[in-house]
Amino acid sequence: MNELFLLIIEIVGTIAFAISGIRLAAAKNFDWFGAYMVGLATAIGGGTVRDLLLNTTPFWMLNGWYLGVTGLSLLTVILLKRYLVKLNQTVFIFDTVGLALFVVIGIQKTLLFGFPMWVAIFMGTTTGALGGVLRDIFINEEPLIFRKDIYGTACIAGGIVYWAIALFSDSVILQQSACGITVILLRVLAVKYNWSIPILHNYSTNEKE
Amino acid sequence: MNELFLLIIEIVGTIAFAISGIRLAAAKNFDWFGAYMVGLATAIGGGTVRDLLLNTTPFWMLNGWYLGVTGLSLLTVILLKRYLVKLNQTVFIFDTVGLALFVVIGIQKTLLFGFPMWVAIFMGTTTGALGGVLRDIFINEEPLIFRKDIYGTACIAGGIVYWAIALFSDSVILQQSACGITVILLRVLAVKYNWSIPILHNYSTNEKE
Amino acid sequence: MNELFLLIIEIVGTIAFAISGIRLAAAKNFDWFGAYMVGLATAIGGGTVRDLLLNTTPFWMLNGWYLGVTGLSLLTVILLKRYLVKLNQTVFIFDTVGLALFVVIGIQKTLLFGFPMWVAIFMGTTTGALGGVLRDIFINEEPLIFRKDIYGTACIAGGIVYWAIALFSDSVILQQSACGITVILLRVLAVKYNWSIPILHNYSTNEKE
Repeated sequence: MNELFLLIIEIVGTIAFAISGIRLAAAKNFDWFGAYMVGLATAIGGGTVRDLLLNTTPFWMLNGWYLGVTGLSLLTVILLKRYLVKLNQTVFIFDTVGLALFVVIGIQKTLLFGFPMWVAIFMGTTTGALGGVLRDIFINEEPLIFRKDIYGTACIAGGIVYWAIALFSDSVILQQSACGITVILLRVLAVKYNWSIPILHNYSTNEKE
Repeated sequence: MNELFLLIIEIVGTIAFAISGIRLAAAKNFDWFGAYMVGLATAIGGGTVRDLLLNTTPFWMLNGWYLGVTGLSLLTVILLKRYLVKLNQTVFIFDTVGLALFVVIGIQKTLLFGFPMWVAIFMGTTTGALGGVLRDIFINEEPLIFRKDIYGTACIAGGIVYWAIALFSDSVILQQSACGITVILLRVLAVKYNWSIPILHNYSTNEKE
Repeated sequence: MNELFLLIIEIVGTIAFAISGIRLAAAKNFDWFGAYMVGLATAIGGGTVRDLLLNTTPFWMLNGWYLGVTGLSLLTVILLKRYLVKLNQTVFIFDTVGLALFVVIGIQKTLLFGFPMWVAIFMGTTTGALGGVLRDIFINEEPLIFRKDIYGTACIAGGIVYWAIALFSDSVILQQSACGITVILLRVLAVKYNWSIPILHNYSTNEKE
């Protein structure tokens, strides 16, 4: 039952990520093929790069539902586009819960491969955040998460909490729950209170003036 | 003789892909080094990503002629640029035949690695179409095949035909020929009759109005 | 002592590469997270792609100081930004010496994996130059080294010198020194005398006129 619960979160998160990519592809007037590919890159890109770095077969090549669920997401956007905008809040929740789970999955898998915690935190962040970067490269925009929102930083914070809990407790459930809740809380609070990471201003043009 | 025939198609296809990249690099006034790299990414990028996903050594690291033929393509564009434009039709034919062969090679290699047919179709499409996406990322444009032409979709269709034939016949030659011919026919007809994949219009701006 | 010397060069080179990425991210008003990621891609991107192609675990996953030194580079840019501009010359020297070492490391590692010299030259160039290309993709610009400067070409020239020396001498020290010095000399002279690789002009628009 616990595994079923996690599977449902993973599917819901994958759909939310794919929809985020498909909607931005739609804003660029991509065709269905392009939208599917951008959705796919958003949904599975982070985990794919993680698995390439871990030198293992990408997860989605061992289980067909990732490609299938992305197709379903495309169909949803095509058919329900007018209603989907009203569901922005819901998509945000799904996206955030998915993000938290992806970070936990990335950390767990990396630790299973025998790497130290700092590599695992990097991989958790990669799993959660790199799909959105690939999405923005595909649609030819500056990556959104490099410019605003607390997104990648929420992944890192979640990873550090995972690490901190692991120093005091051997309970993997506790480590993973604390990590996931940290990611969700930080992201929700950041959006609610408009928190952001400091901007690195362009000093060189200032100097030239 | 059959192998020689396939080798010739592969070389011709590689040259056609490389020339497509080099010409777009020229349109951006890249230097010879940049043009070579864009040509190379176009020619071998799809197969390289396929081999990384299959967790095997990229094909071009085992045989020097891919890098050599890309150099030859650069030389051709430098020397014959005025004449090349008149050969647009010829380059299109070479590009299309190369595409068909790349899809077949991608499917065949993936099946040899023991993956199911749906992974093979994905890899055939990746082998054929991802080089063009990498090319457009390098020249900082929205990927052309995400916006117009039936290109990636022709690869998928070829893969599905491969699959369908495999249900009725064990003849690999038949499966591969049918796949390749499907890709070529779809692409040629699409250009001739101006077929395209439906655009995913930007509903969110519509909603905002 | 020799190894300590090489380690210092590698750290200094990594910092110079990271700073180059962080400064360009600052010019785009990225936040600290984005700047760190762009700096990291610039510093370790080339070697990471090399290790993926060599089908081995990326070097920075085995040693924490690459991620740490990139963080230090970010801190340096944040704190010392006004002074850093006056150090442009110094950063250029560090960047060039780092480039030379990265090319040598890339060639050496590829030869250790049993690949022939032409693959090693490609990998040396990838190690040295691809980080800058990834940096420009992340900040959504046309790759600088595809348009101006003798950068990638200096890597290739260094690799060819490595090869040429290896034909006459078995001394790895001699091969590597000659390779590194070639890269440094070519890059310094190119900047000093404004050398560049010929541009591939856009013949197709010329034709249309």
